Amino acid sequence: MSKVEVFPIEGIPEVRQGADIASLILRALSKAGLRVRDRDVIVIKQKIVSKAEGRVVKLDSVKPGDEASRLAQQQGKDPRLVELILGEAVRVVRAGHGVIITETKQGYVCANSGVDRSNVKDGYATLLPIDADASARRIRRKLCDRSGRDIAVVITDTFGRPWRKGQTDVAVGCSGIQPLLSYRGKKDRYGYELRVTEPAVVDEIAGAAELATGKLTRIPVALVRGAKFARGEKGARSLAIEKEKDLFR
Amino acid sequence: MSKVEVFPIEGIPEVRQGADIASLILRALSKAGLRVRDRDVIVIKQKIVSKAEGRVVKLDSVKPGDEASRLAQQQGKDPRLVELILGEAVRVVRAGHGVIITETKQGYVCANSGVDRSNVKDGYATLLPIDADASARRIRRKLCDRSGRDIAVVITDTFGRPWRKGQTDVAVGCSGIQPLLSYRGKKDRYGYELRVTEPAVVDEIAGAAELATGKLTRIPVALVRGAKFARGEKGARSLAIEKEKDLFR
Repeated sequence: MSKVEVFPIEGIPEVRQGADIASLILRALSKAGLRVRDRDVIVIKQKIVSKAEGRVVKLDSVKPGDEASRLAQQQGKDPRLVELILGEAVRVVRAGHGVIITETKQGYVCANSGVDRSNVKDGYATLLPIDADASARRIRRKLCDRSGRDIAVVITDTFGRPWRKGQTDVAVGCSGIQPLLSYRGKKDRYGYELRVTEPAVVDEIAGAAELATGKLTRIPVALVRGAKFARGEKGARSLAIEKEKDLFR
Repeated sequence: MSKVEVFPIEGIPEVRQGADIASLILRALSKAGLRVRDRDVIVIKQKIVSKAEGRVVKLDSVKPGDEASRLAQQQGKDPRLVELILGEAVRVVRAGHGVIITETKQGYVCANSGVDRSNVKDGYATLLPIDADASARRIRRKLCDRSGRDIAVVITDTFGRPWRKGQTDVAVGCSGIQPLLSYRGKKDRYGYELRVTEPAVVDEIAGAAELATGKLTRIPVALVRGAKFARGEKGARSLAIEKEKDLFR
């Protein structure tokens, strides 16, 4: 096994609607003197993808409906924000202690449908990309074309989790990498057959990138080199557990 | 920000009861030509800590009780294994689709109370350390004393999670590192105050280590260098969400 390296990529400017994320990343990599290699993974925070795709909403433009107003009052939140949260959700999974946990249209279960007021202008909120796997595919195609390297792309967001405090960065979109690395049917060195072992490498890569970028510095991109993963285009969406297998519905 | 590096540490021999994990690690590091530095994090898989602490049970020595036999039949599992799972649990959180999710005595919610038959002799199962934070403190003390460096220790296990397929490695014990890196009260560059942002850096470090070690190779230890974290001794156990705040009980 070889070492894994995570490089924070500095020098990405403020991203506006229509920005070409791939170009911004390649320029920043070049400025940092980093040359991408085959199997490098470019990890991008959802926020800049959302901004480039125009998924930014002025809160003053939002008219909260009855359900949003009721839920907002219950949980002590801004009703306009709750209207956005419900608009992005297919269902509310839990609400309590000022937290609204929803299932998003992409199938992710997270706080506030990923709607977020941090790292955006005051009075605005960002929404998750409509299809972050498609965003990852588009960005990847450009990165590969222009660099001549076969690299992978992971788009991340910061999710909480039940039972454990704190949050970790996880993948909401990916391309050129299979989300799970399956060990099913493989045997350990005692001959025991692993039946359920499928590390969610995209999520571990997302978390590793977060360690190098942090939350406050203007570093929305990291390069992860040396991680073991399988190629594929299942997308991060394939991580969502099907209704009928979900023990926590 | 500087890069984060994850070195898989090869050359740890089979660990037996009573083994001095710290010595085995220092020897392997030295063989690998790696000199530890202040703020390095040594990440250790639970399995070798459990083995060193004698937390290995011969399945033939286990007599399943009524509850275990009933649950085993329901979920298609070995009743002896289920007896061990229940013995390590304070409650069964969910059971279905052949999966038993419990809350362990340490307060972790995970599959099978962390009882596992992989990477151990046939006919045996390993249990989680009784107090993995204490295990981490003991190992850390020796590592720091003998190396003269102020390093941190994280003990990991592989946990599934609700709603998302696959597993990630997370911390079950830690020392010399605070599990969360709090951004509470800090402002982003737009002046927005972050109120809930507390990355679970120990879990992200655990996942990053998994990327470098994998599941099949005999590499139960990794060194993570360059991650930002706070010093402290709250232990991984402090990650468990209190009953009254738990939206998913």
